[in-house]
Amino acid sequence: MAAKTSMRNIGQSITRLEAREKVTGRAEYTHHVKLPGMLYGKIFRSTLPHARIKKVDVSAAQKLSGVFRVVTIDDIRTVIPHPYYGPAFHDQPVLADGKVRFAGEPVAVVLATDPYVAQEAVGLITAEYEELPAVLDEVEAMTSDVLVHDELRPASSFADLKHLKGRKGTNVALDYKLRRGDVEAGFAAADHIFEHTFRSQQVMHTPMEPFVTVADVADGRVTLHTASQGPSFVRIEIARLLGLPENRVRVKVPYLGGGFGGKLYIKLEALVTSLSLLVERPVKISLTMEEQFFMVTRHPCTFTIKSGVSKDGKILARKCSVVWNGGAYADIGPRVTQKAGFTSAGPYDIENVWIDSHAVYTNRPPAGALRGFGAPQTAWAYDCHMDLIAEELGMDKLEFRRKNLLREGRPQASGTQMHDAALDTALTDAAKLIKWDRPLDRGNGRIRRGRGIAVGFKGITTPTTSVAIVNLYGDGSCGLYIGTVDMGQGSDTVMAQICAEVLDMDAAAIRVVHPDTDVTPYDMGTLGSRSTFHMGNAVRRAAEDAKHKIAELAKELGLPEGSNLPLSEMFKRRYGMQAGNIIGTGSYIPDYEKPDVETGQSTTATPFWGVAASAAEVEVDTETGHFTITKLINVADVGTALNPKLVRLQLSGAAIMQLGFTTTEEMIFRDGQLTNGSFADYKIPTLLDIPREFVNTWTHSEQKDGPFGAKGAGESTTITLSPAIGNAIADAVGVRLTDLPLTPEKIYRALIAKDGAAAKGK
Amino acid sequence: MAAKTSMRNIGQSITRLEAREKVTGRAEYTHHVKLPGMLYGKIFRSTLPHARIKKVDVSAAQKLSGVFRVVTIDDIRTVIPHPYYGPAFHDQPVLADGKVRFAGEPVAVVLATDPYVAQEAVGLITAEYEELPAVLDEVEAMTSDVLVHDELRPASSFADLKHLKGRKGTNVALDYKLRRGDVEAGFAAADHIFEHTFRSQQVMHTPMEPFVTVADVADGRVTLHTASQGPSFVRIEIARLLGLPENRVRVKVPYLGGGFGGKLYIKLEALVTSLSLLVERPVKISLTMEEQFFMVTRHPCTFTIKSGVSKDGKILARKCSVVWNGGAYADIGPRVTQKAGFTSAGPYDIENVWIDSHAVYTNRPPAGALRGFGAPQTAWAYDCHMDLIAEELGMDKLEFRRKNLLREGRPQASGTQMHDAALDTALTDAAKLIKWDRPLDRGNGRIRRGRGIAVGFKGITTPTTSVAIVNLYGDGSCGLYIGTVDMGQGSDTVMAQICAEVLDMDAAAIRVVHPDTDVTPYDMGTLGSRSTFHMGNAVRRAAEDAKHKIAELAKELGLPEGSNLPLSEMFKRRYGMQAGNIIGTGSYIPDYEKPDVETGQSTTATPFWGVAASAAEVEVDTETGHFTITKLINVADVGTALNPKLVRLQLSGAAIMQLGFTTTEEMIFRDGQLTNGSFADYKIPTLLDIPREFVNTWTHSEQKDGPFGAKGAGESTTITLSPAIGNAIADAVGVRLTDLPLTPEKIYRALIAKDGAAAKGK
Repeated sequence: MAAKTSMRNIGQSITRLEAREKVTGRAEYTHHVKLPGMLYGKIFRSTLPHARIKKVDVSAAQKLSGVFRVVTIDDIRTVIPHPYYGPAFHDQPVLADGKVRFAGEPVAVVLATDPYVAQEAVGLITAEYEELPAVLDEVEAMTSDVLVHDELRPASSFADLKHLKGRKGTNVALDYKLRRGDVEAGFAAADHIFEHTFRSQQVMHTPMEPFVTVADVADGRVTLHTASQGPSFVRIEIARLLGLPENRVRVKVPYLGGGFGGKLYIKLEALVTSLSLLVERPVKISLTMEEQFFMVTRHPCTFTIKSGVSKDGKILARKCSVVWNGGAYADIGPRVTQKAGFTSAGPYDIENVWIDSHAVYTNRPPAGALRGFGAPQTAWAYDCHMDLIAEELGMDKLEFRRKNLLREGRPQASGTQMHDAALDTALTDAAKLIKWDRPLDRGNGRIRRGRGIAVGFKGITTPTTSVAIVNLYGDGSCGLYIGTVDMGQGSDTVMAQICAEVLDMDAAAIRVVHPDTDVTPYDMGTLGSRSTFHMGNAVRRAAEDAKHKIAELAKELGLPEGSNLPLSEMFKRRYGMQAGNIIGTGSYIPDYEKPDVETGQSTTATPFWGVAASAAEVEVDTETGHFTITKLINVADVGTALNPKLVRLQLSGAAIMQLGFTTTEEMIFRDGQLTNGSFADYKIPTLLDIPREFVNTWTHSEQKDGPFGAKGAGESTTITLSPAIGNAIADAVGVRLTDLPLTPEKIYRALIAKDGAAAKGK
Repeated sequence: MAAKTSMRNIGQSITRLEAREKVTGRAEYTHHVKLPGMLYGKIFRSTLPHARIKKVDVSAAQKLSGVFRVVTIDDIRTVIPHPYYGPAFHDQPVLADGKVRFAGEPVAVVLATDPYVAQEAVGLITAEYEELPAVLDEVEAMTSDVLVHDELRPASSFADLKHLKGRKGTNVALDYKLRRGDVEAGFAAADHIFEHTFRSQQVMHTPMEPFVTVADVADGRVTLHTASQGPSFVRIEIARLLGLPENRVRVKVPYLGGGFGGKLYIKLEALVTSLSLLVERPVKISLTMEEQFFMVTRHPCTFTIKSGVSKDGKILARKCSVVWNGGAYADIGPRVTQKAGFTSAGPYDIENVWIDSHAVYTNRPPAGALRGFGAPQTAWAYDCHMDLIAEELGMDKLEFRRKNLLREGRPQASGTQMHDAALDTALTDAAKLIKWDRPLDRGNGRIRRGRGIAVGFKGITTPTTSVAIVNLYGDGSCGLYIGTVDMGQGSDTVMAQICAEVLDMDAAAIRVVHPDTDVTPYDMGTLGSRSTFHMGNAVRRAAEDAKHKIAELAKELGLPEGSNLPLSEMFKRRYGMQAGNIIGTGSYIPDYEKPDVETGQSTTATPFWGVAASAAEVEVDTETGHFTITKLINVADVGTALNPKLVRLQLSGAAIMQLGFTTTEEMIFRDGQLTNGSFADYKIPTLLDIPREFVNTWTHSEQKDGPFGAKGAGESTTITLSPAIGNAIADAVGVRLTDLPLTPEKIYRALIAKDGAAAKGK
């Protein structure tokens, strides 16, 4: 649906519906939940990355006054015969089961009426282990004899994992393949061949609200209050784990203090529900900020990319080998592997493409979804690689990209045609904003300046479904029932805008009913930039259904066409009092054709394209390696910006997050132990780290099948920021870093090495 | 819809869905609600029935440690300019406003963090009054100079009260008229004229769970957790009082520990919401059992009934004058006046009827709806009157009733035709069960035995609307969203049965989502036997809508007709995973034609008829007046008994309640003060009061437009129990009591008087 020229809600920077609640401290969070008789759980964790458990001694902890019970997997098994869970593989035990697979894995839980008592009791638990060799590196894990799991146990719901069922002797959880054209013929026809390897580090989501879940299991019914981005998924997985029908599991989610993909699928919910089932009391577990390092992280990734290029700069073939370090449990890693895999050759028009993308188990904390869903790791590789090629060919880096860019109607490597992907506009706008065509004062002393550009894209997980209900009350006011989780991104407001626009009312007049799986209909999850598009379409349809029913009511009442009798009056005429409802429903699922398993080819690999370009300007201190980002431009394609203010916040938020992943954040391991698991040592960006000139904007394009022309905006600016900065540093001082994060130390060492090489070369 | 011969759910005595929750103490009640920062309120009440307030001194209370604030109407007025509420009249101030109108009226509230502190502080409040003359009796109030209200203020939502707006100088809140035929001509044509006056006393609902409300008002939003039978009404009235749209008011109702009409419309909610708005903190008020006497009661009633009868026992004309004592505030009294008014001539086929039914204000605690909605008070009169006539005519009391009974297709006094009202069957069955045709051992010493019978009916409030949503989840399990309040009557179970029958699943597999006005659609209220019929029809329609959508989905998936692929599989095929919803909606409102204001004539005075007959056998001790009910038979017409076990419980529960109102319960006033406001003095029935032979059964008839042939069952057995017992006592010892309750003392005095008269007659 095209954006109309002037609309009441769409395109308006409407203030968040919950703004007042939040600034007055009234907003509802799971941390506030306190149920009668509730116990608090604290977790005893493994100290080794890989070991057989010989003994867990809970006797001293059990004796501490105020301790209700100390629970291990043996206790859980008395109420759940097979206590394993996970979205892609049922590989994760509720508590360590005979073996620990990463340092920090939950081994036992103390339940007490006071959380401090529980924490004290955790300190009294001891465990004896038989240490096993551990494998930490993803490339090593591909061929290692050290096996993290004995056997693969894919979930039945992932059809493309079926062939892995029962596979033994491997750490590879998924081997995704994409084959297009004849890549060897392409290389043979090329004038130049380039091959580089890039690495991304392990990082963490760091939401301001740590994980927290309250479970109340009684009489064959489960009620969960949980900080989750995916209440529908939690319901389904808990129902499976306990052998209950879905309607016996109720999952309630209030506001979230950030999620970023970390709170997706199933996390604390499996453990806390099992505990409540066992002890027949409500149970709450809240993690500390630091415990989050052991819950879920972002995949470290090793990406080898090889291109064959003609002398005039046309890419003829590209081969990608991407290895994703999934840690000890697969979580949603196989989907990351596949979704980020199929776009790993970049947003370029290449006839011959060969992609292998592997999800591997290692003895690290598990990795899952994190804002960008793998796209930032692949773009880091392919758009640094693009610069290296352009440099070698002596081509302008912008021109080289534009020459190869995927354009409207052309098939992407998956075979899916490009539509509504403003790659060229984003790239051109980013170049304009950084004044690419003007010469840069590059400096000539200790401080050198450089400039970098990058363009990238991401596919959106498909097929996924959203369902919405619009309920008009007797006075004509409106409730909107959606499973979309407002975790700070402003979804309540945007969904209300879509609903209000269709019904010709003000967004502020809409009451958004928060996720409660008994009440709000199915939504696949608040993830992967899908809500505005999928739920937005479902909301639009639900509102249109309601509008249609209003028209029917008007006809029933014999009102003349175009009558603008208020709905409250229509209700009064129909029901004889202020009574009744108009209930509209809408659901949305994009068209979908299953990709071919061997070639990954599909005409519907994504319902829309996330698109962004970045441009950066840096100053590097050649004596210390310290660098300052003086300009950072991010241009995203969000289709119609439904709420410009919220879009801008999403774009800048994603960019700042990725800036941390690009420059400072890294989980550092020694002998399989996380050495910087605190926020004194693990540095997330602060206001002082924001570039002096920091522009986040969009292309003013249109996603034709999106609600009012919109598409998702939450992840795009994570994609291209890292290569733009990496390229700018290389441009400034001539050293190419291949491993994230880009630290002064690495630059300094590379400068030393370059000088050494130059000296040797002399 | 006709009942099928064998059904999976309908007609099955399925165990209540919540049985386990209730016996394990897990069931959710408003009393459990505790919010952060919540204050407890305790009420300071007036000690006079009618007085001007000169001064309320709250200073000592305010100083008590732990008291947060003491609130009077002046405080409330700072946040609500016109703090008056009520369903029919906006006549009730949130706290006494310048004047008190009954002894026990709330004058001030103490708010404290501890309810005991609040209660202590209430004891420190003093008030000075200027006492005014009070009017207590309803007949006196009709013409009294003592005016309870200066001016009538009808709510705009009651169209039939409009003409009363601004009326001054009267205590009559509604003068309902019904005129049919020519009553004077009827009397003129009659061979005999009979006229009697009967009285019913003031009684109370006595739910096991006293009134309790928690209000949380913040940022222009109201959340109420309240023990209410009418969440939709509470939402509408609170929205009106605070000037908010409906979707800013959320009313949540868990289980109720009984309601019986007392928790209808708006009670504590107005006060508690006002307090929370004022102090910007959550506020909870729970009444004690005894404070309930000052909240709402059942109307005392004086009913003069006059009949003209031909010598062969045909009733030719009947004139009814019913005066309802509404107490100080009208509550829903005007509707009681009208609804019980139009049936006050009894279930008899009479050509000429004249009814006047008056709602009057007095200085008593307010009266409102109570199980039967006035029908028991009118039946007490008309079916004692029937016995008196039969006796005079020397006719068998059963035969006299049957001769005059309204039969299928005949117009009732309102002009509405009788349909699906099993009056004759109920009466015949009751007679059979008490063996009416066999002689009774009447006794001849101190103990005398007698037998009585009665038949009656009631209209159901109309037009009213119910709306339901059926939501089928991804695994095919089901949620049912309804505003019907399960207050012990088993509505969750019965609604699940209706839904399950349509969808061919088990009722136990349905999850009933409890009333939450943001979520569950509109329902007029759980009252007046309307739920099974109205909400049942809405649920049936919602389930049928869902079924239709399942068929559409099957078509879309290309399934052969009659395919029994489980819904979960259909969802998987449609959505590629366990996802999606089928959402069915249904609403129901009966056909309705407005009655003529002058004559009360309408073809749709009720959507169905509540029908019952009772028969009783008593033993009376002629020396003490003490009597024992040896047999009590109640036969109701419930249409199809959807759940026989629940129907039986409803019928016996209603009968036991009415037994209390017939024999022991009475609020006794002296100088306007309630003298027996405790359960040591106000006696409700115990197990020992249940008659030796106590049968509650039904006619196995059918309500053709009810869901699966059903109609409401909650009130019918309240209607005819009192006259059956009164008639039995008269039959045993020849004394006719006209005023309820039927106490040994009254019988004893009547026996003395009769003996005196007999002695005089000698």
